Amino acid sequence: MIKVGIVGGTGYTGVELLRILSQHPEISIQEITSRKEAGMPVSDLFPSLRGQVTLKYCDPAETKLDQCDIVFFATPNGVAMQQTRALLNRGIRVIDLAADFRIKDVSVWEKWYGMPHACPELVEEAVYGLPEINRDKIKQARLVANPGCYPTAVQLGFLPLIKAKIVDTDHLVADVKSGISGAGRNAEVHTLFAEASDNFKAYSVTGHRHLPEIRQGLSDAAAQLVNLTFVPHLTPMIRGIHATLYARLLANVDLQVLFEGHYANEPFVDVLPAGSHPETRSVRGSNLCRIAVHRPQDGDMVVVLSVTDNLIKGAAGQAVQNMNLMFGLPESLGINHIPLLP
Amino acid sequence: MIKVGIVGGTGYTGVELLRILSQHPEISIQEITSRKEAGMPVSDLFPSLRGQVTLKYCDPAETKLDQCDIVFFATPNGVAMQQTRALLNRGIRVIDLAADFRIKDVSVWEKWYGMPHACPELVEEAVYGLPEINRDKIKQARLVANPGCYPTAVQLGFLPLIKAKIVDTDHLVADVKSGISGAGRNAEVHTLFAEASDNFKAYSVTGHRHLPEIRQGLSDAAAQLVNLTFVPHLTPMIRGIHATLYARLLANVDLQVLFEGHYANEPFVDVLPAGSHPETRSVRGSNLCRIAVHRPQDGDMVVVLSVTDNLIKGAAGQAVQNMNLMFGLPESLGINHIPLLP
Amino acid sequence: MIKVGIVGGTGYTGVELLRILSQHPEISIQEITSRKEAGMPVSDLFPSLRGQVTLKYCDPAETKLDQCDIVFFATPNGVAMQQTRALLNRGIRVIDLAADFRIKDVSVWEKWYGMPHACPELVEEAVYGLPEINRDKIKQARLVANPGCYPTAVQLGFLPLIKAKIVDTDHLVADVKSGISGAGRNAEVHTLFAEASDNFKAYSVTGHRHLPEIRQGLSDAAAQLVNLTFVPHLTPMIRGIHATLYARLLANVDLQVLFEGHYANEPFVDVLPAGSHPETRSVRGSNLCRIAVHRPQDGDMVVVLSVTDNLIKGAAGQAVQNMNLMFGLPESLGINHIPLLP
Amino acid sequence: MIKVGIVGGTGYTGVELLRILSQHPEISIQEITSRKEAGMPVSDLFPSLRGQVTLKYCDPAETKLDQCDIVFFATPNGVAMQQTRALLNRGIRVIDLAADFRIKDVSVWEKWYGMPHACPELVEEAVYGLPEINRDKIKQARLVANPGCYPTAVQLGFLPLIKAKIVDTDHLVADVKSGISGAGRNAEVHTLFAEASDNFKAYSVTGHRHLPEIRQGLSDAAAQLVNLTFVPHLTPMIRGIHATLYARLLANVDLQVLFEGHYANEPFVDVLPAGSHPETRSVRGSNLCRIAVHRPQDGDMVVVLSVTDNLIKGAAGQAVQNMNLMFGLPESLGINHIPLLP
Repeated sequence: MIKVGIVGGTGYTGVELLRILSQHPEISIQEITSRKEAGMPVSDLFPSLRGQVTLKYCDPAETKLDQCDIVFFATPNGVAMQQTRALLNRGIRVIDLAADFRIKDVSVWEKWYGMPHACPELVEEAVYGLPEINRDKIKQARLVANPGCYPTAVQLGFLPLIKAKIVDTDHLVADVKSGISGAGRNAEVHTLFAEASDNFKAYSVTGHRHLPEIRQGLSDAAAQLVNLTFVPHLTPMIRGIHATLYARLLANVDLQVLFEGHYANEPFVDVLPAGSHPETRSVRGSNLCRIAVHRPQDGDMVVVLSVTDNLIKGAAGQAVQNMNLMFGLPESLGINHIPLLP
Repeated sequence: MIKVGIVGGTGYTGVELLRILSQHPEISIQEITSRKEAGMPVSDLFPSLRGQVTLKYCDPAETKLDQCDIVFFATPNGVAMQQTRALLNRGIRVIDLAADFRIKDVSVWEKWYGMPHACPELVEEAVYGLPEINRDKIKQARLVANPGCYPTAVQLGFLPLIKAKIVDTDHLVADVKSGISGAGRNAEVHTLFAEASDNFKAYSVTGHRHLPEIRQGLSDAAAQLVNLTFVPHLTPMIRGIHATLYARLLANVDLQVLFEGHYANEPFVDVLPAGSHPETRSVRGSNLCRIAVHRPQDGDMVVVLSVTDNLIKGAAGQAVQNMNLMFGLPESLGINHIPLLP
Repeated sequence: MIKVGIVGGTGYTGVELLRILSQHPEISIQEITSRKEAGMPVSDLFPSLRGQVTLKYCDPAETKLDQCDIVFFATPNGVAMQQTRALLNRGIRVIDLAADFRIKDVSVWEKWYGMPHACPELVEEAVYGLPEINRDKIKQARLVANPGCYPTAVQLGFLPLIKAKIVDTDHLVADVKSGISGAGRNAEVHTLFAEASDNFKAYSVTGHRHLPEIRQGLSDAAAQLVNLTFVPHLTPMIRGIHATLYARLLANVDLQVLFEGHYANEPFVDVLPAGSHPETRSVRGSNLCRIAVHRPQDGDMVVVLSVTDNLIKGAAGQAVQNMNLMFGLPESLGINHIPLLP
Repeated sequence: MIKVGIVGGTGYTGVELLRILSQHPEISIQEITSRKEAGMPVSDLFPSLRGQVTLKYCDPAETKLDQCDIVFFATPNGVAMQQTRALLNRGIRVIDLAADFRIKDVSVWEKWYGMPHACPELVEEAVYGLPEINRDKIKQARLVANPGCYPTAVQLGFLPLIKAKIVDTDHLVADVKSGISGAGRNAEVHTLFAEASDNFKAYSVTGHRHLPEIRQGLSDAAAQLVNLTFVPHLTPMIRGIHATLYARLLANVDLQVLFEGHYANEPFVDVLPAGSHPETRSVRGSNLCRIAVHRPQDGDMVVVLSVTDNLIKGAAGQAVQNMNLMFGLPESLGINHIPLLP
């Protein structure tokens, strides 16, 4: 059994990690830390876990994380970078579900996240945990930077086009809609039910932190700088991301064949039949990304529709997928849930 | 492997049966029938099942249900009673998720369901499939009448009080709220999103078909006729039932001890600590019923709060729980999902 | 023009007061105060008011409330009682939308609200602002205690039965469901969209602050103490209250005739035809209370269904109705909006 | 008083027309027709209208529409074109809220709407009822084609850019999200609450009927053919449209000044301050369109955010705005409702 520790875990990423890991056949959750909730059973905070998870939150000062094989950070940005060096030095592997190790250019990271980076040298070592790109590197990694929710859906949708070099990468558009859980479990007015329900809005049009992450990933894939307009929106549902992606076609290619071929061997990317429109609920509660590709009116614009559950393929599920790879387990082990519909 | 057939299965009970049974380790789904959708892959109707269920709906006229060990009817009321006799005669067990075999008094059934009963003789044989009452009988049954969603939540909440003979059973009140999926997957105006969202209403106050079913169950438990006022409501959520139950206390009993004792050995009934308020989402996607008991202001009224997922403990999950009992499998096998929260 | 001041007004009651009063033909809003938002245009906080309300929040220390004819307190409990005496002394009338003046027994108020009362002598003078009971007193009042949202829906539903002395007032049950806006615009975890959506729960079963208010109102109407079990619930919609009320009948009366007669002359209470089920959306955005009365199965239990918009008839609309009465204006002036459906 | 007739009116556009017109000071609603609901009071179908609208639906065969001054068609596509000629011949003006007269090229219309046109000669006469473009023509019109909901939000967002000739009109992108009421009040599975709630999806990516309408309007404004990719989506809210519009900038212009100038005198278009993100709820229940314009990262892509209430500015409200213009009434008369928030 692999011994797992979780730092943080009072948010939605935390409860999903607990739900998934507590049913994972090769895992033993050793402990979960929270300064604020120390001493409280996790099932008091998340009654869905009653009878399944008997852990209590423990004080970070009293943890025995050094007895774990792997530690997940389900913390705000800026926490993992403080503690990762010590864990790695003890031979413990780390997956950070926050953004500390996602951006290779530390100055870019510091600009978007508004703080100095505590361990720039580890940024270089960290592997960006999108298995559909970096599977082999993840298998060897000590430190994985788990991708953001928007970047996962957007990159998986654009990748086949960019790898095939058939679109204008100077004017990509990603119009992305997220469920409200993406904003986290923090008490804020704008995500109250009475504010966010029966309502739709864009936000951060001038620049969202996931923009440099997406741009980095797509530029790597293109082997040149890409230019992306990324507009995130809040939509009144709990879970789910729907990316609608636009790119100008430069070549006449059978897009359906391209996408199906690109993802033929991927366990968690499902390319739908031509003409389909994936719904976010078709992946609710699962680690799947479902994708459809369109060329409206046979024009020169390709439209890709890509949906994920932001808390699973966009966070906790992908983290466990990465863990499976890092420990040589079957990639789908413990994350093969069927979506809950309706 | 137990060979399973499903009759019907184009509604929400059907997709949940498929989701649960396709992951059940001792089950092989042989076929699923639908006259209307014959030939269509089930995953075309329910994209959540893509990659997990490869069955197509088959025409009822061409089924090989007689090669199954058990057949589930996920059909409208009145269908199972037409076909059950023939299946039983071939040694095939039957679980009806509709109402055909729930009411022992056939004249009462005919009055509430508005049709003559096709096989009254089987009504007597049928076992009412609430394991918390009839576990031993279910184990021996050939034919199980799976309870309705409202009756499950209401009976589980009232049973400890009634068995203990400490409440006035002439004036029970069950005020129950259901998610919209309880109305099924039929195209109707009143369950459209734009009608049912941001809205709340009672319905069938003058008499709902689940009233005689609840009354029968509680009267059996009380060994005398009980009198119940049952008011169902539609609440704008997909899944979940919340029963708020009121009864006048006739004796001074430690209610918390009573409830915890009554359900101490039940795998799917969770009595919450004193002072709790169960939320429907704490059972979403699971076979659990969570219950809290209150005595407000230390008065003579006891208030029981009982929540279930109407599609699981209120339908498909309980059906599989019954199947497990009928075939001597561990009762929780394949239905031990952790609720999906948020 | 009547000069109006609003104290508070950064919450949902505030924005509704502004929406209603800014369209009221006999009103001029002089100022609105908020310590926290002083200097901010109200339309920055509530973009729905852009182009219609040009006021800014002003600092309470700099207000000229003493130049108003009437002041509305849309503040947390405990604020109005600090400032009302001074306003009344200057001849300014006051309507408190919070609870400071609702409970006549000051010791009861202090127990439920957890603070000493600052002006018990004004509690006696204050008129409870339910026009359907106290219309004449409201016309003469200097100080009106605007009722709570739950108490409005519950009292209007029970009153005809209690006045007619035909129900057992020792065992009344009020099972009431509220939209999430009833919890206010404060940043709290339990009212986040991702917590409250697709979810249903009861709360405060052991005792909610509106219980003594309802009990006082019904006891006054009965001219004897009544005993009530009141269970509030949160339902995933923005606005609306649905009260389901249960009482044991002691006499054989035509309930439909009773209710229609009782409310024949009320501009804002609509008794639906026999057999109806009022929906909360049928009053959304309006000052109406719609009521239906049932006697299920011709038994001895009467069931009353009563719906309101919690922010209007349950708060801001009723406050303006009271103001109209206090100033001799037509009772419906400025609050005759047609509900918004769908 | 202007005598108004409504043909159809059992859908959401109908109930909104009734809500608005019944409060309009210069209007008398003479009759409303519906074959299916003939004889039923409209308030039985729409309880929100109880006490405000006493009309019954009348049989189309028995109508006295010829005594009206104006007739609104709130019918499915293809109905108005059958009846308009006769009405115009009697001197009655007509506003069609469906699509019969929107597309000038009849062959294009016939292709997208799948039927032959019954009166091509009237298509030429009909004025496209977007007052922000055609105000003067509308004032003189006998026949107005009320715009579609998507085309209203999209055109109002793009117009200032196109009129100023500063964007590449060969690669416009309109990513638009609509509330579910846009799909109408027809009983269909895909718009059931349990299907559409907690879900997000695109639809008709290969081609939606509003595409040729938008293209026509923008091409007229550009005085050349424009090329548009239009992707509509369903979002789980009742009302509201949010258009996110993308265009490549060809010139360096102060976009904020451009937009504020363009709409300076428009009563129903509100250009928000720079940096804003309009929310659909900020126009809920009103005839407003609120717009913000962004140039992310100072790049060459302009992003316009445009929101409306699809049932009002996108349908019934705009129709009444057109009627006001046709009859020389103040343009805002009877449609100056303040949005309902929360």
